[in-house]
Amino acid sequence: MEQLEQLYEGKAKKLYATDDPDILWVEYMDQATAGNGAKKAQIAGKASLNNRITAVIFDLLKARGVDSHFVAPLSDTEQLVRRMTMFPLEIIMRNTAAGSFAKRYGVDEGTELKRPILEFCVKNDDLGDPFINDDGIVALGLASPEQLDEISRQARAVNDALLDIFSAIGVRLVDFKIEEGVTSDGRVLLADEITPDTCRLWRVESDGTVEHLDKDLFRRDMGDIIPAYEEILERLEQLAADEGIERS
Amino acid sequence: MEQLEQLYEGKAKKLYATDDPDILWVEYMDQATAGNGAKKAQIAGKASLNNRITAVIFDLLKARGVDSHFVAPLSDTEQLVRRMTMFPLEIIMRNTAAGSFAKRYGVDEGTELKRPILEFCVKNDDLGDPFINDDGIVALGLASPEQLDEISRQARAVNDALLDIFSAIGVRLVDFKIEEGVTSDGRVLLADEITPDTCRLWRVESDGTVEHLDKDLFRRDMGDIIPAYEEILERLEQLAADEGIERS
Repeated sequence: MEQLEQLYEGKAKKLYATDDPDILWVEYMDQATAGNGAKKAQIAGKASLNNRITAVIFDLLKARGVDSHFVAPLSDTEQLVRRMTMFPLEIIMRNTAAGSFAKRYGVDEGTELKRPILEFCVKNDDLGDPFINDDGIVALGLASPEQLDEISRQARAVNDALLDIFSAIGVRLVDFKIEEGVTSDGRVLLADEITPDTCRLWRVESDGTVEHLDKDLFRRDMGDIIPAYEEILERLEQLAADEGIERS
Repeated sequence: MEQLEQLYEGKAKKLYATDDPDILWVEYMDQATAGNGAKKAQIAGKASLNNRITAVIFDLLKARGVDSHFVAPLSDTEQLVRRMTMFPLEIIMRNTAAGSFAKRYGVDEGTELKRPILEFCVKNDDLGDPFINDDGIVALGLASPEQLDEISRQARAVNDALLDIFSAIGVRLVDFKIEEGVTSDGRVLLADEITPDTCRLWRVESDGTVEHLDKDLFRRDMGDIIPAYEEILERLEQLAADEGIERS
């Protein structure tokens, strides 16, 4: 596989074309950002951790019947994925009130939700990634009704599988963000990454104290992300080994 | 019917108990507000116009099979309605992009939407009436899934009927806000008011010029609302007469 021209540089990854039109070359960066890029830092080791965490999560998901764009690891900081036409949507699943949801509705962070909440935001930095509902997505042509149904079904399936995975390593999955796209043959599929950058992962002690094992450490200046991300990676790798999962 | 203690004072109406526990006495006020109360004015004649406009609209809706809380007019500025337990929701239907929707998604005001959009906001001045989706409404316990289905069905039926009514008087129904509640015997029912305070009503000229016949005249300092509201009332009264509708 040959790396060709750079197609895109996001906040945490660069995407390159390859000699296979259906395959992209992803390079994770050591960059951390928060608040729509308002806060930014270089954190040595983050690229490698997130590249490996998302790979093991995609393998653990696959073993639970949830497919993704992930094809194969390339190096510590690089992987191959399927090329897709992305929906301009941030797809958010919430099990516990936190972050923007808690603030928006005046609910205490940590409040368990009666049922998982699926939310969508339009990916648009200039507009501040505005919240949108199903009618809005279809009316603005961001997805067809059929695609939206499939995205929603997959998001809930990803949540069920991730709840199972994180509970197996003693971590509460508070919420997460995924992205989806359409393959060249028209299949709606999970894409982007699943890492502590895109999930809220809490270790809740018996006295209710919350230890954050995710990007909120950086967002809220609560500590170094690297030891937390290392622990998540180690435990996920151990889980995959314990389950005898075939690694990509 | 006897007017008893005041139960509530909103931005445009006061509600009183009556000697019938299932009936409330509504008094419309000459007050106009915008921007969550940031802008406020007394406009002589507004109470009477809105009281009469919402009455004729509820009658026109009833003739189209859409029931509401409206019981009977009392005076120029007062009416009787059914007492209900209200959902803490603003229920918004949009046919054309305007206002907060146009701003939120960077869409030109006046853009026709591919299909009507139903939106909900939590009624909470302190939180700025935040936008919420169906999952959020159920997870926060603001309505049951069955109630939410019924509210949504009724909102779309109100939109269909209002589109018919306003098109018959040569006005474009851009969007509107309603509220719903539950009667003492458990029925989900349309409540509050339907007036140029709660609808965007445009007369679109052949050259595309838009004449606003609603509260945007006040919100955006574009002119006097009274002549516009008077015209809306006159045309609706004429339509009800032409249709031979029995008036409450």
